[in-house]
Amino acid sequence: MSDLGAYLRRYIRDIPDYPTKGVVFRDLTPLFKDATAFRSAIDGLSGRFRDLKIDAVVGVEARGFIVGAPVALALGTGFVPIRKPGKLPWRKRSTSYKLEYGVESMEIHEDAISSGQKVLLVDDLLATGGTARAAAKLIEEMGGTVLGMGFIVELVYLKGRDMLRDYRVESLVRIE
Amino acid sequence: MSDLGAYLRRYIRDIPDYPTKGVVFRDLTPLFKDATAFRSAIDGLSGRFRDLKIDAVVGVEARGFIVGAPVALALGTGFVPIRKPGKLPWRKRSTSYKLEYGVESMEIHEDAISSGQKVLLVDDLLATGGTARAAAKLIEEMGGTVLGMGFIVELVYLKGRDMLRDYRVESLVRIE
Repeated sequence: MSDLGAYLRRYIRDIPDYPTKGVVFRDLTPLFKDATAFRSAIDGLSGRFRDLKIDAVVGVEARGFIVGAPVALALGTGFVPIRKPGKLPWRKRSTSYKLEYGVESMEIHEDAISSGQKVLLVDDLLATGGTARAAAKLIEEMGGTVLGMGFIVELVYLKGRDMLRDYRVESLVRIE
Repeated sequence: MSDLGAYLRRYIRDIPDYPTKGVVFRDLTPLFKDATAFRSAIDGLSGRFRDLKIDAVVGVEARGFIVGAPVALALGTGFVPIRKPGKLPWRKRSTSYKLEYGVESMEIHEDAISSGQKVLLVDDLLATGGTARAAAKLIEEMGGTVLGMGFIVELVYLKGRDMLRDYRVESLVRIE
């Protein structure tokens, strides 16, 4: 892990047995709260994709908004939210995807992505990769190309990268 | 309204009869999606509070994250999320508040605000002011001082400012 990763790791709070016994939740609110850590994370993540000439940054509700919106501004693009069902007010597309504990859905506005756009998907944390893959499929159905996926934290032991093999995946803090 | 306000107004999509008949929903996703409009909104909003030496920016889930996180970075502070019940993993405080259609609750981590901190509350849109006032009370209970409230859009006809008379309220787009 890089020096930046080791530095940011200190701002991630481990919460044992949350949300269920045996799971360690990684809480990023201490990182967001610290001006220097938050700035370093956004600059670090944006820097990994500066070569790609991204057209749009997409973030998934809700923590993905905290990371995705600043990364969009840092890369000079707009920001596109993917939301939980029933939250977007206009015409939309949706997709459903399986998680360990059931089926989830997500929605995006029909005009959010244009055909041929080069898209970066951003979230706070990569776990199993299910959410990121579903979001990428939704973007691709609209004609966008997912050039990369960026996460502040990657839970390496959950092997999310295996599910995202088709994409360039970058993370700052790798937790083994 | 300022030139900036008139410019940004063009990126706000009016959706009649949403979520219920007779209500016009103001959709900011076209503004977030446009790199120049989004950047202008964040710079404009941050600029209104640059004199205040803010210590922390707070945003309310979920659209408040899209605006609050970039404003925090622009002002050189950290970002603190207020979330819907059951979303924050650590020790927290909560408050309930009335809206037209029932009672809502919101939560914040106990260590999110320190006593004496100067706080800016940010959201995408000021409607009746109920959410902003509840968020401010929560911050004040923790010993923080709410020095200002910033919104991209203000629905002037809903008179949210009347409920927020104790605070310095700034908005970029005033819809009469």
